[in-house]
Amino acid sequence: MSDRSRIAVDAMGGDEGLAVMLAGVARARRDIDDISFLLVGDEPAIRAGLANHPNLSQHSEIVHAPDVIAGDEKPSQAIRRARTTSMGIAIDCVKQGRAAAAVSAGNTGALMSMAKLSLRTMPGIDRPALAALLPTLGDNDVVMLDLGANTECDARNLVQFAVMGAAYARTTLDLSAPRVALLNIGSEDQKGTGEIRDAAQQLRAATHLPMRFAGFVEGDRLSRGEHDVIVCDGFSGNIALKTAEGTARFVADLLKRAFRSSVRSKVGFLISRPATELLRDHLDPNNHNGAVFLGLNGLVVKSHGSANERGVATAIGNAAKMVKADLTRRIIEDLGNFEAKAAA
Amino acid sequence: MSDRSRIAVDAMGGDEGLAVMLAGVARARRDIDDISFLLVGDEPAIRAGLANHPNLSQHSEIVHAPDVIAGDEKPSQAIRRARTTSMGIAIDCVKQGRAAAAVSAGNTGALMSMAKLSLRTMPGIDRPALAALLPTLGDNDVVMLDLGANTECDARNLVQFAVMGAAYARTTLDLSAPRVALLNIGSEDQKGTGEIRDAAQQLRAATHLPMRFAGFVEGDRLSRGEHDVIVCDGFSGNIALKTAEGTARFVADLLKRAFRSSVRSKVGFLISRPATELLRDHLDPNNHNGAVFLGLNGLVVKSHGSANERGVATAIGNAAKMVKADLTRRIIEDLGNFEAKAAA
Repeated sequence: MSDRSRIAVDAMGGDEGLAVMLAGVARARRDIDDISFLLVGDEPAIRAGLANHPNLSQHSEIVHAPDVIAGDEKPSQAIRRARTTSMGIAIDCVKQGRAAAAVSAGNTGALMSMAKLSLRTMPGIDRPALAALLPTLGDNDVVMLDLGANTECDARNLVQFAVMGAAYARTTLDLSAPRVALLNIGSEDQKGTGEIRDAAQQLRAATHLPMRFAGFVEGDRLSRGEHDVIVCDGFSGNIALKTAEGTARFVADLLKRAFRSSVRSKVGFLISRPATELLRDHLDPNNHNGAVFLGLNGLVVKSHGSANERGVATAIGNAAKMVKADLTRRIIEDLGNFEAKAAA
Repeated sequence: MSDRSRIAVDAMGGDEGLAVMLAGVARARRDIDDISFLLVGDEPAIRAGLANHPNLSQHSEIVHAPDVIAGDEKPSQAIRRARTTSMGIAIDCVKQGRAAAAVSAGNTGALMSMAKLSLRTMPGIDRPALAALLPTLGDNDVVMLDLGANTECDARNLVQFAVMGAAYARTTLDLSAPRVALLNIGSEDQKGTGEIRDAAQQLRAATHLPMRFAGFVEGDRLSRGEHDVIVCDGFSGNIALKTAEGTARFVADLLKRAFRSSVRSKVGFLISRPATELLRDHLDPNNHNGAVFLGLNGLVVKSHGSANERGVATAIGNAAKMVKADLTRRIIEDLGNFEAKAAA
């Protein structure tokens, strides 16, 4: 079992419980060759759960952790319990080189704080950012960051997010020069905050990097497939992401209501069911699960707290892709190039 | 013709041109009794356009304006042209008491700056906010503000927006004690920026006002019908509003694509067409058009630049409702109560 392709999983995090986590990991193991796991958490419970997944048992090792971080635990309190909790120990496996990435569905704030304290930020990076892939009408998903790790950001943070996001898009979406845009409330140069305008100026000048800066993008064009990376502060990013999720669910609920409105509609719905299922599949957050903290000296992936078996498997699949692409090293190289040019 | 029920319309603003504006006004006139108009803009053009709308002709007066504010004109430049432009003159009609409200589909930033300069903010209000009604799964629409007039806001601004938004909800949605929430990136007390947390503290203490403060709301619950007023800074509000619009369109596009994916789906689509039309109707921005600048000594309503005839009529209908409800006076009273208690 090579450490290069081993993933540490916080088996105890998430709202759905250990059984769903293990089922998700087992599913990922079936989908991905050459991958193995450190399952971190309560050893007897994990051992019992593994009885249902003989294939996973063969490719995993249990790492006992007596404690669990609570969903509403404050980050400042959580970091004091790093050594005894499944989340803290999973991150530590990455630090020790025992695993190539850690995946957790637990408390995002605690995960961020613990990961930053343990793995430290990359050279030149002030703050890590939470990045995810979102569905679009185009051929590719779009990378969006920050999604809530940093409530307020200055121009330097935003520029670093752009560089990290572009590196992520190159490795995950196989693009040579991703189109990067800053989220703003208008497309004209004078729109938005001073921080955003400063960041735009710096990105316009950074022509040596393998990315294309495309200026500002407004909220109504995020999913048009016109950009590969959308950069924003964590507050706006979280608002946009959750508003998009909520609106998609809202439209689906309206559609359901509309289909129930008459017998004729019900018949139409039954006939066109494959179409609406295709839609549901495309919008299901479980098919887009697995946000990564970019900017750390090690990979930490956040799975949605309410992800189901498929969602957990998607998050692990994303983590495996990032490991294979050597994402951390490539981002460090990219940032180095940028800093060197900026200093010259 | 009573000035109390007369609305000044910037006939030249908007992307769709004079003919659509006039058709929208004529439609509003058919829908609403006891309403009349000042049509502000190029007199010969308006006169020619009115030939198609004899009923509107009987209930309107033309006010000539030689110039038009351009869509990309900077607010600082626009305010110097207030006296000769259709937008500036429409606002001036409100200031002079010749009209009870002004409606424009032109440049939002210019409209905001001109309106603020001409009508001034209400006593105790530092900045006006752009407010609109958005569709929900509940019985009522939800009021959301600010939607882009103020890029950055402090706690005092947010509290004033809450009070103004509540007054708007009481008059427009006929609610006695609207449920007011602050848009945030989590529901726990320690989430978000210092400004938002301070505003929450002040609103929690303001128990004498006819509204119920419901704490924080996240982006995914905006359209659940759980709140009547959502308060945020103009940057977040614009991002949320446009992301919601974009996502609704995205889902509709996916649905269209899904329905085209097979003959069976196409047949299902045809049969269930009334249902999908119901959906389209519910989501159509033209049915929710007409954002108002709250906090001014006079009513100024912004119609979407790309609104169609129905959209323009909806915006005018909203303006007429606000006039009838005496919105400006009621908000001034509310703010007075709040300030008196705060000073006590």
